[in-house]
Amino acid sequence: MTSEISALVFDAYGTLFDVHSVARLAESLYPGKGAALSAAWRTKQLEYTWLRSLMGRYEDFNRVTVSSLGWALESLGLREEERASRALIEEYRRLATFPEVPAALESLSRRCALAILSNGHPGMLDAVVAHNGLHERFRGGVLSVHSTGLFKPAPQVYALAEEALGVPRSMMGFVSSNGWDAAGAKAFGFRVFWINRNGAPVERLGVRPDAVVTSLADIEQHLG
Amino acid sequence: MTSEISALVFDAYGTLFDVHSVARLAESLYPGKGAALSAAWRTKQLEYTWLRSLMGRYEDFNRVTVSSLGWALESLGLREEERASRALIEEYRRLATFPEVPAALESLSRRCALAILSNGHPGMLDAVVAHNGLHERFRGGVLSVHSTGLFKPAPQVYALAEEALGVPRSMMGFVSSNGWDAAGAKAFGFRVFWINRNGAPVERLGVRPDAVVTSLADIEQHLG
Repeated sequence: MTSEISALVFDAYGTLFDVHSVARLAESLYPGKGAALSAAWRTKQLEYTWLRSLMGRYEDFNRVTVSSLGWALESLGLREEERASRALIEEYRRLATFPEVPAALESLSRRCALAILSNGHPGMLDAVVAHNGLHERFRGGVLSVHSTGLFKPAPQVYALAEEALGVPRSMMGFVSSNGWDAAGAKAFGFRVFWINRNGAPVERLGVRPDAVVTSLADIEQHLG
Repeated sequence: MTSEISALVFDAYGTLFDVHSVARLAESLYPGKGAALSAAWRTKQLEYTWLRSLMGRYEDFNRVTVSSLGWALESLGLREEERASRALIEEYRRLATFPEVPAALESLSRRCALAILSNGHPGMLDAVVAHNGLHERFRGGVLSVHSTGLFKPAPQVYALAEEALGVPRSMMGFVSSNGWDAAGAKAFGFRVFWINRNGAPVERLGVRPDAVVTSLADIEQHLG
């Protein structure tokens, strides 16, 4: 799909930034329950973004993250303590990138404009991008769904990137490790790279990604 | 909430009809994997209803059920065989009710109009209602989301019941065992009974059910 791509848009959590450190902190706060807690939390966090979008009851990703943590703790019979919860939420502002990310972004940024498009609240997103010193890589912008009052995979969200970058969707590359986000972006009309780090099946949502890779470092070879 | 309720609308799968027999059949087809398969299938089935609604890519619940089964089989490394898949899908047309359901419906139907509002395709729904000999209980209708091109918890879906029964939402009782469905119905303005059979936490979606019960038999006492 070589010459057709004139900008690349990246999902943030799980694609650029590794949420594993949240699981580690959860384990230190709730010994023996860290993995179960972070899995239940992540599942519920996504569910709430979809449900609230469908219900027409958007609330920002910070609040969704707090609500879903509360539900996950209660479902596991763990006590909600404000200090522990705040520490877990704060961890999202300090996530590390996956190892290959800084070099891959540097290389890709020499070829075309890069941007982020994320469910994250603008404040959360800016914090984690700044923490990793990546702001200058994203001259296309660090875009949050927040202004639409909807979460991914609503088409209005993907349209934000098309408008902000002034690049038609057919010339926009979209990179996500979330199979459902890849499907949403493809249904919208982007050229989609699915980073399938865990060997998951392709989502059966009527569209397929244009390329499936296991690392951000593999994207460049698909650009020719 | 006694006298204010002049009709009761029920969710179908998991609320009236027990999907456990699907797990049993899954276990006989894929020994040792039945529980994992039916859990992965159900989770993915719901995800696809939410994702497709948000993507503006509705397909009917029959097809979503087939797609999500295919994904679940692949995720567990199980072979997709057409005959086995067809048997699992067909099982949805022959689900049994939970034990208390027939007597509870009979009793409730003497007090007010009853209806079903379900994600199910009209054909699937009619089949399972007929299989259980329940058509005459639901003189308010057996309503499918199908005509809206959206799934629960989109408000347009709950509006179907309000329109079909000619009862204002504030006088409509809505009964579901799915916490997120209970939240969607409450956000729409129904009076909501959440059948919490498994002791799950209330969903943190900004609204709470009006009553939490563990069985359909407990609804009547809340009607005064």
